[in-house]
Amino acid sequence: MRDFSGDHRWLSINTATVRFSQGRAVSLDAILDAYAKRGIRAISPWRDQVAAAGLTAISRQVRALGFELSGYCRGGMFPAADEAGRQAADDDNRRAVDEACELGAACLVLVVGGLPGALEGHAAHKDIGLSRRQVEDGIGRLLEYARSAGMPLAIEPLHPMYAADRACINTMEQALDVCDALDPESTGALGVACDVYHVWWDPKLEAQIARAGQQRLLAFHVCDWLTPTRDLLNDRGMMGDGVIDIPRIRGWVEGQGFAGYSEVEIFSTGNWWKRDIAETLDTCIARHKSAV
Amino acid sequence: MRDFSGDHRWLSINTATVRFSQGRAVSLDAILDAYAKRGIRAISPWRDQVAAAGLTAISRQVRALGFELSGYCRGGMFPAADEAGRQAADDDNRRAVDEACELGAACLVLVVGGLPGALEGHAAHKDIGLSRRQVEDGIGRLLEYARSAGMPLAIEPLHPMYAADRACINTMEQALDVCDALDPESTGALGVACDVYHVWWDPKLEAQIARAGQQRLLAFHVCDWLTPTRDLLNDRGMMGDGVIDIPRIRGWVEGQGFAGYSEVEIFSTGNWWKRDIAETLDTCIARHKSAV
Repeated sequence: MRDFSGDHRWLSINTATVRFSQGRAVSLDAILDAYAKRGIRAISPWRDQVAAAGLTAISRQVRALGFELSGYCRGGMFPAADEAGRQAADDDNRRAVDEACELGAACLVLVVGGLPGALEGHAAHKDIGLSRRQVEDGIGRLLEYARSAGMPLAIEPLHPMYAADRACINTMEQALDVCDALDPESTGALGVACDVYHVWWDPKLEAQIARAGQQRLLAFHVCDWLTPTRDLLNDRGMMGDGVIDIPRIRGWVEGQGFAGYSEVEIFSTGNWWKRDIAETLDTCIARHKSAV
Repeated sequence: MRDFSGDHRWLSINTATVRFSQGRAVSLDAILDAYAKRGIRAISPWRDQVAAAGLTAISRQVRALGFELSGYCRGGMFPAADEAGRQAADDDNRRAVDEACELGAACLVLVVGGLPGALEGHAAHKDIGLSRRQVEDGIGRLLEYARSAGMPLAIEPLHPMYAADRACINTMEQALDVCDALDPESTGALGVACDVYHVWWDPKLEAQIARAGQQRLLAFHVCDWLTPTRDLLNDRGMMGDGVIDIPRIRGWVEGQGFAGYSEVEIFSTGNWWKRDIAETLDTCIARHKSAV
């Protein structure tokens, strides 16, 4: 297992982590400048932030500042209530692959979607099995396109509390079953993003990380689970402030040969998004050394 | 699968569901009178409610009104930071078995506990594997006592969002692994409580219900998963108001031969606990017929 205590060579920070500074939105170009000033070498931007700042401008800035992208957030949301919705999702996902290629991302992260309409509070149906079949079909279609573009797809199992509205793939085991079905040769074109927030509770985690192996471990995300957690979406903790044994999980992942970035992704309306971006980034660097 | 549409013969209501009426606490004896008035034949009381009203008085009232107990809530909370804590938990769990016997409960429901101290916001450690070993050991010790008392123990896997602070057994598969280890003969002394709120998301649910079989399916709990869910603990929905396909899951459970009560357990600070107990009970009866 790599020693992170001395520097932050392997730190990536997902740009949602500093989407707000003192409660105000920060533009992606300003975020990148703040990263560069601190020697943070890798980022993982969200599509809406890239769109707001302009893909071409961000792509130029990424190259000029020498950033790597540990991933691009995000494709997915495959289940749809009708054929038009399915087609719109497919089109959007191919654009996400194109953008990930333009930015030189290591992978496109997939948040696969749940029951159509549930995110807006009115689910079109209650058949999570149907959504799961639609997700597998959708990833299958996108995989052909992504493979030809050379962009690996990383299925991110989300915590089961998001099964209805954000992702009906909820364990590593389930994600790897999809990988087995769609890419049985483990070519590297399809794998998983392992986010400790989503999977730390899973009694089968160690075994499933071993099952994934280096070929399918495409990304490693960190933050912490707070007790109490006051909001299902936006109360993630800074590494070290919660109950997840992050070094143990990193040890399992690196034991399989994973040698990529450790990406911090924190959504925090009540705490970190209220603080100044400088404080949040400096804390990420410190905790990357002490708690990851 | 039984037809529930015509009556509420197989409705049980967990007394936490009407713990508050119009925001004010309701005593357990008043709750039981309100049940009896509506021909609700089964209850599942919480220990703190029984203690507040007095075990002897409640036991007498239960018999006088002819109630059955679909379960007794709850034993568990096995992990402890030290030997004194472990001993206190053991003592308390044996008292819970005694109370369940006194009340004639069908089973004692076990919420097994998570990281010691996490519920109070300061976990003693981050080793969830250690907690899981302590849970299995604790159930093993209690099982001897409960078996001699003739009281079945029902492990309730809680949703993974409670893994840190309430229960580190989070899937049916995991609960059944513990059953296999401690009661390999499936004597009926140890089984599971299947609460749709906790397990509806699990892609292995149908298979694990089949694995459990009649001998280990000791209780069936219902409520619904709301989108959005505004609180991790106290925003459960009335059956039919959320996204869980409850009849499908009941079909799986009854397909194994389960023929007991369908127990409504709703914690709802923002909605049902604000309403009048009469409205909540009448709605439970109506939804038992139409949405379970």
